[in-house]
Amino acid sequence: MRAMLKGIAASDGVACGRVYRFVEPDLSTKRRSITNLDYELNRFHQALEAAVSEVETIKTRATKNLGADSAQVFSAHIEMLQDPEFIGAVETQIKTEHINAEVALASVAKIYESRLQEQTNTYMQERVSDLHDITKRVTAHLLGVRLPDLALLKEPVVVVTHDLIPSDTVSVDSKYILGFVTDLGGRTSHSSILARSLNIPAVVGTQSATADLAEGTTVIVNGTRGSVISEPTKPELALAKQAMRDRTANMQRLATLRHHTTTSRDGVGVLLAANVGTANDIPNVLKNGAEAIGLMRTEFLYMDSEQLPTEDEQFMAYRQVIQALAPRPVVIRTLDIGGDKPLPYLKQKPEANPFLGARAIRQSLAHQNVFRSQLRALLRASAYGNLRIMFPMIATLDELRQAKAIYDDERSRLTTANVPMGKVQVGMMVEVPAAAMLADRFAQEVDFMSIGTNDLIGYTMAADRTNQDVAYLYQPYHPAILRLVDRIVTAGHAAGIPVAMCGEMAGDPIAVPLLLGMGLDEFSMGAGTILKTRQLISQLNAKELQSLVETVLNSASTSQEVVTMVQAAVPDVLNQTD
Amino acid sequence: MRAMLKGIAASDGVACGRVYRFVEPDLSTKRRSITNLDYELNRFHQALEAAVSEVETIKTRATKNLGADSAQVFSAHIEMLQDPEFIGAVETQIKTEHINAEVALASVAKIYESRLQEQTNTYMQERVSDLHDITKRVTAHLLGVRLPDLALLKEPVVVVTHDLIPSDTVSVDSKYILGFVTDLGGRTSHSSILARSLNIPAVVGTQSATADLAEGTTVIVNGTRGSVISEPTKPELALAKQAMRDRTANMQRLATLRHHTTTSRDGVGVLLAANVGTANDIPNVLKNGAEAIGLMRTEFLYMDSEQLPTEDEQFMAYRQVIQALAPRPVVIRTLDIGGDKPLPYLKQKPEANPFLGARAIRQSLAHQNVFRSQLRALLRASAYGNLRIMFPMIATLDELRQAKAIYDDERSRLTTANVPMGKVQVGMMVEVPAAAMLADRFAQEVDFMSIGTNDLIGYTMAADRTNQDVAYLYQPYHPAILRLVDRIVTAGHAAGIPVAMCGEMAGDPIAVPLLLGMGLDEFSMGAGTILKTRQLISQLNAKELQSLVETVLNSASTSQEVVTMVQAAVPDVLNQTD
Repeated sequence: MRAMLKGIAASDGVACGRVYRFVEPDLSTKRRSITNLDYELNRFHQALEAAVSEVETIKTRATKNLGADSAQVFSAHIEMLQDPEFIGAVETQIKTEHINAEVALASVAKIYESRLQEQTNTYMQERVSDLHDITKRVTAHLLGVRLPDLALLKEPVVVVTHDLIPSDTVSVDSKYILGFVTDLGGRTSHSSILARSLNIPAVVGTQSATADLAEGTTVIVNGTRGSVISEPTKPELALAKQAMRDRTANMQRLATLRHHTTTSRDGVGVLLAANVGTANDIPNVLKNGAEAIGLMRTEFLYMDSEQLPTEDEQFMAYRQVIQALAPRPVVIRTLDIGGDKPLPYLKQKPEANPFLGARAIRQSLAHQNVFRSQLRALLRASAYGNLRIMFPMIATLDELRQAKAIYDDERSRLTTANVPMGKVQVGMMVEVPAAAMLADRFAQEVDFMSIGTNDLIGYTMAADRTNQDVAYLYQPYHPAILRLVDRIVTAGHAAGIPVAMCGEMAGDPIAVPLLLGMGLDEFSMGAGTILKTRQLISQLNAKELQSLVETVLNSASTSQEVVTMVQAAVPDVLNQTD
Repeated sequence: MRAMLKGIAASDGVACGRVYRFVEPDLSTKRRSITNLDYELNRFHQALEAAVSEVETIKTRATKNLGADSAQVFSAHIEMLQDPEFIGAVETQIKTEHINAEVALASVAKIYESRLQEQTNTYMQERVSDLHDITKRVTAHLLGVRLPDLALLKEPVVVVTHDLIPSDTVSVDSKYILGFVTDLGGRTSHSSILARSLNIPAVVGTQSATADLAEGTTVIVNGTRGSVISEPTKPELALAKQAMRDRTANMQRLATLRHHTTTSRDGVGVLLAANVGTANDIPNVLKNGAEAIGLMRTEFLYMDSEQLPTEDEQFMAYRQVIQALAPRPVVIRTLDIGGDKPLPYLKQKPEANPFLGARAIRQSLAHQNVFRSQLRALLRASAYGNLRIMFPMIATLDELRQAKAIYDDERSRLTTANVPMGKVQVGMMVEVPAAAMLADRFAQEVDFMSIGTNDLIGYTMAADRTNQDVAYLYQPYHPAILRLVDRIVTAGHAAGIPVAMCGEMAGDPIAVPLLLGMGLDEFSMGAGTILKTRQLISQLNAKELQSLVETVLNSASTSQEVVTMVQAAVPDVLNQTD
């Protein structure tokens, strides 16, 4: 049945293709009495084989995308699927109880699980999760239902799902994904960020995509407008295909900018950098012509693990990114974690308002052993390229001075120990309004400042952007935000240091002309936006934009007025980027 | 045994007196077999009589302090204590079951309670709470333990308690309270605010006061230093008594300022106003010479009730305050409620970060029926004096314009209906950093602005002051805060409107010289601080302080630097206010 869905335009472009439902199927099983034992044992072995072959495919993909280390988990799965003791136990159950394979498998898995859970070490706990995975996969084959896995895609499809979490997408090969449509999420959810970084059209938050769109249906996903049409008419299809061709042509044009520097029409040069979470993002970062990494988050390293990562683990992770980018700069942010993303092994108390709680540098100063270990890992990695260290959530000069003193202390210990280190710039995020208001004082004591717009906007507007009821207050173009950003840029330049911005706003086509006019030195964004922004900046006249900035700062009262002013000032340029 | 406790200095001054433990006693009862029935019945009747006489006393106090309406609840208690059916039921239990009166009372109370709970209306639910109260009181008399009640005090004492909640203190006669000592709480908890508004020395957050201090022990409470000494030595007592005499003398000196206006040494006049929660605060406000009410909160009206207060209930509450102060201005803030203080009848969702959620004006615009009813009540009450209405948590001009449009709409409806109304000024709180940054634009569209420092500091520092781990970041003197305050004052004056401040900071002796130098027009604070602030301002030269302000804004980097600069600029004045 033809359906038309509205959602949030999460990643630009039009995609057209068949629906692949990435939705967990019903895997509930019923106990049946079995008379033909051989048939049942055979059914079980066929399911095992099919599962092994699937996991092999996933493993190959993961090795290619993530490296052999990350793919090890799949080797463990295969080993379990071929474990004679485990298989024998299921066979015995089928034979002695005369029950169907699904139920026998579940019963054996349960016994194994309780045995594993008696162990307390982390390795054994991971095995429980592996056991769940393989049991699910074999059960799916026994029931004849498909366990969807993005790593198993063999042809390009439109992925329809409730929502994506990072672990769903680690082994995705982007060439098989034409577009994303989700039930949940907003512009800043994982699905949206991933889609933009891979330049895949996406519509999120449709509420009903998984209910309305059947497997295999043809759909048109319009990620610029936020609409999805299923079973399109011929004229609709023709239009969509034209849009896809135009987009491909445009992407090819953009790709020619890959090895260019970034310069405005009147010759003002800026640095376009990428925000990354892990080393896995590097290929995409390089493909999109980033001139630097403007923000490497270090949270995943801590959150993916059940205990603190060791200094060596961190060292290797940082070195990998620094080496891959050298001699280009890599800005690494020290741990930004707190009550909203608690680490079990840090024993954090639940907080009434975690966004206003003991996060980021506040945590680092309170748990100095964790902070010192991270700084040592960073300093050791600095020998391999061009590292800049950045402290998050600085609100007072006392905090900055404390953090710098600890850094200096660790640096001089390593110097004494003759550990090789590179030159390192030390800077801070400006994301707490207090730091923005006092940027002139902070600028005296750091090598660079980087404006973290996501939090700065949240605090300045007193609105949690993850709260649907107040998400409308998360306004990057609010004149108050622009005034703060301008203050920070001006303060940095007065002190002779560069000012960067990392956050969605740095790649936003309405914000970019203003930021260029203000004199922002470095724009750091999701990799997928870099080439478009390079093209946009090449068409803008930085000098002329200064008067636009002045008008906006002095006379705009609302976000809407700002948008109107920008659109009026550079209409041709913006139309072209649509 | 002599004990020395340290706590948080919550309200200045030294007090010396005997401990009154305001701690719930153990009221657990045991079933006993009764042989002498007459004796047991007599015991029950004596307990009833004692309870009635106690409630009569409480009722008299409450009538005096709160008015006859508020004391009605105690009439209901007395009625229940004299209800023949209820008394008869307990007697029957004693006689037929041969059990002690405590157990018979508990058993009858339980039956009554379940009967009441079958009813669903609010009236009956309130009766359940009355039933609990009287059962507790009679049981205490039967057990021979004292049920502490601040309304029953007959001589001045030092109150020692875990923590105070507003309902504990509604019927307090402040002349019987020499000082407060609590286990819990901080400088901004209810106990502290109450103590300061009543000018009663207080030490809070001692952790162990109720464990360490026995009933009747003599203690010295030093609310300036945050210390408590029990069983003091003679020299300690002598020193304390001298401090109390000095304090009384100083209070008397201050009392002479009650009917004065507030003027700096060089003749700059400002308005000193009080923050209030309910009409109960008015006597204290008048006693302390407030020239206005700069902030009347309206939350209590909503939180004390189990359903929305009616328009008429609100009208009467507002009118009472407006009439009592007329012709002095009364600034009433529309409902500031949200996820952190949810109202059951508004069905608010729990929020991950309620301070950054759907609070205050965001709620009012989302529940317009509640907002419109409050505005109508305010407009009707405006006929009785000098009302100013203030919208909390404004972050965007869109919100302000919407709120004003709704206000205009209700006003014109009432005009059409010939309802008498006074002139009303309409203003806004500046407490969201975005509003502070854009104060110049907001100032064009309001009659006045009032800086809400508690929230402004919290958002600007990105720190929840109720979170112990980050409370150190709640820094009123942080140069970023002072720069924002200065921006707001400057913006207001440029637009020709007055700028007020309501919040702890407005009565802080370090902040006051800076605020006076910036040109703040109105200082609104807890009533207990008004006279001290009037005295302080009379000793300051506003013109000279302008250069202090300039130095602080241009060159202070930390809160500590600000304090040092202020202390250096006006040393004599500050020493005197200690």
